Amino acid sequence: MARIVMKFGGTSMAGTERIRRVAGIVKRQQEAGHEVAVVVSAMSGETDRLVNFCREANALYDPAEYDVVVASGEQVTSGLLALTLQAMGAKSRSWLGWQLPIHTDDAHAKARIESIDTDEILASMAKGEIAVIPGFQGVTADKRITTLGRGGSDTSAVAVAAALKADRCDIYTDVDGVYTTDPRIVAKARKLKNVTYEEMLELASVGSKVLQTRSVSLAMKEKVRVQVLSSFIDENAPAADTLPGTMIVSDEELAKIEQEGLDMERQLITGIAADKNDAKVILTAVPDRPGAVATIFGPLAAANINVDMIIQNVGREDTDTDVTFTVPAADLDRTVAVLEENRGTIGYQKLATDPKVAKISVVGVGMRSHAGIAATMFKALADRGINIQAISTSEIKVSVLIDSDETELAVRLLHTAYGLDG
Amino acid sequence: MARIVMKFGGTSMAGTERIRRVAGIVKRQQEAGHEVAVVVSAMSGETDRLVNFCREANALYDPAEYDVVVASGEQVTSGLLALTLQAMGAKSRSWLGWQLPIHTDDAHAKARIESIDTDEILASMAKGEIAVIPGFQGVTADKRITTLGRGGSDTSAVAVAAALKADRCDIYTDVDGVYTTDPRIVAKARKLKNVTYEEMLELASVGSKVLQTRSVSLAMKEKVRVQVLSSFIDENAPAADTLPGTMIVSDEELAKIEQEGLDMERQLITGIAADKNDAKVILTAVPDRPGAVATIFGPLAAANINVDMIIQNVGREDTDTDVTFTVPAADLDRTVAVLEENRGTIGYQKLATDPKVAKISVVGVGMRSHAGIAATMFKALADRGINIQAISTSEIKVSVLIDSDETELAVRLLHTAYGLDG
Repeated sequence: MARIVMKFGGTSMAGTERIRRVAGIVKRQQEAGHEVAVVVSAMSGETDRLVNFCREANALYDPAEYDVVVASGEQVTSGLLALTLQAMGAKSRSWLGWQLPIHTDDAHAKARIESIDTDEILASMAKGEIAVIPGFQGVTADKRITTLGRGGSDTSAVAVAAALKADRCDIYTDVDGVYTTDPRIVAKARKLKNVTYEEMLELASVGSKVLQTRSVSLAMKEKVRVQVLSSFIDENAPAADTLPGTMIVSDEELAKIEQEGLDMERQLITGIAADKNDAKVILTAVPDRPGAVATIFGPLAAANINVDMIIQNVGREDTDTDVTFTVPAADLDRTVAVLEENRGTIGYQKLATDPKVAKISVVGVGMRSHAGIAATMFKALADRGINIQAISTSEIKVSVLIDSDETELAVRLLHTAYGLDG
Repeated sequence: MARIVMKFGGTSMAGTERIRRVAGIVKRQQEAGHEVAVVVSAMSGETDRLVNFCREANALYDPAEYDVVVASGEQVTSGLLALTLQAMGAKSRSWLGWQLPIHTDDAHAKARIESIDTDEILASMAKGEIAVIPGFQGVTADKRITTLGRGGSDTSAVAVAAALKADRCDIYTDVDGVYTTDPRIVAKARKLKNVTYEEMLELASVGSKVLQTRSVSLAMKEKVRVQVLSSFIDENAPAADTLPGTMIVSDEELAKIEQEGLDMERQLITGIAADKNDAKVILTAVPDRPGAVATIFGPLAAANINVDMIIQNVGREDTDTDVTFTVPAADLDRTVAVLEENRGTIGYQKLATDPKVAKISVVGVGMRSHAGIAATMFKALADRGINIQAISTSEIKVSVLIDSDETELAVRLLHTAYGLDG
């Protein structure tokens, strides 16, 4: 017997007909002999409806009251899933955020989970009751409802799995797993059998939106084994834990899997991600003196603008330098405003921007022990005349900035170059 | 300074535009110098939507989970009203049933309020915060959400007013007060300035659906002064407590009002109600022996059928008797089934039914001290040839059963006969 937390998103919970489908999946999991807790999202569209009500009521809404309103969506689906499970002959009850309770800090609308009480729910599950828990919500020390921010239900599921010491956290999504790259770009993209937390974080933060980044960080910290599965499985499929999804595991578990030869298709590079959400900023002829760079990035940090890739080139004279960096495209206007405001202190000659860039990243823990990964990338791109505008690397990732028109071409070239084509 | 509880129904809360209107009324009440708590219903139509979800999920739904789902409607409007008040510059916060808490028994979907904790909410109100409380909901001793049954928000408002020792509970409705009779039947119907709890109960139980009967009983028990007001008042109207609604008061308060000449228009009879929801049952030639009647009404009571008017006539021979009574029309088929099943024990010769009946009631506390009220009624009906099929009386009410085709005529005749025409 295992203890399993299952999580279903808004598309899966949209209406009683779909909830019945979810209940079938959940019940089969219990019938396979496991203790089961389910974390659910609101019906798709419902959170937007509630958020709009709040905006109409008060443009500068009080996040504490906003939380009261928007947390109701998951309350409804929790009750309905418990009712549906009961109708199918399973024992079930709902546990709202304040009932468990799921303790959070008081940062309303973007709260962080601090702890989850489990005595009562474990006793209930031990009696064979399927626990249904609304995602996205918690409660403060002074008994106010909180929400975790959009997409917080994945985080709720991982936190519940950690608190319950679950054997696995199965996240049911619109896709059936994590792929080597976006299958809409590369038809030969393959579903990965295993991916490590860090790989998943790198892939997520550069564009693969399968799971909330925050939930993956939490899973890594709490060592929760997370599996990504499709919620569109056949009504008569066997219990969910026999279905092939993508398992997100620790480095240690991956090492064991590889040692035992359980993931034959695994390559040095796990996946390739493309991200078109950045814009490039170029400051030319910045005086090359100690502290010069701080005069640029200090004010940007103060304005809460997240700078990603940074390259500093020696300029035309050895007394000045060019600085290139990327920021989220959504923050480009604010970035320009901040830089112009600080032009006197920074002392640059010219400010240029380019929103037409894409960041292409190759990710894989295998990089740690193998040289030449980056060289393969640069060569593959150079062979087809794709110009690299900037490079950044981490221990398990190499990212390059290119013209966004070349995104799909670059991803396909690299997918082949690293032997990922299925 | 007074402490006032205000209650708004679903029509008033249907959408952010209407909630803004409500917030305006509430804010003016606070600006008039009062401490204010507001009890709200769900947006009209929302509770039906949620109930339908429950039925679709599970026809024989678990009332505990049903409560989780349907209580969300009032949670949403509470948060939205608090947000709207804040947008208007008022301080406000919502207090959900489990937050106050409003303690109830565990009869889910039809719970009864046991007590309400008030320390925190009174402290908040003393700081000038308008308290917004969802109607219809509470919480059990083991922290499960309960609801009070349909229309329970009136009861919530009265219970909150009692707990807060409020000076008044203002119930805002689709009508602007309690009338001498249904204005759709009698154009000359007048709005009453004052009505006692008992009169209101008699009027409500025979068809005037202004307030939930249960809320009036609670107000009487807890001596809460309740005012019925229209929620469709002008945006620029003065603070609500200067508007003329109908005040529901105790006998003692009414006596004082009359002594001080503050309700000049008050008549011996307060109102006239018509109720077409009953059906008549006639059992002929029931053996006239001790215990005979018990053989009829025992089985009906066991089947939870509520018998109202009962008349026993001596039959054609002095060894038998005819028994006529009324039951809710909705229960007529079940009534016939129960009687036929028990025909052997009861021993009646013939069973006849008539769903085409109406109960007309004249109500007034003045009846207690004045004779001849019933005689006036009988004469007025007889003069126009309206046949009285049955009579029942209470201390402050006389009811007669007539052919339902004559309902409107009878109400108009009596409205004039008792001097109620405005």
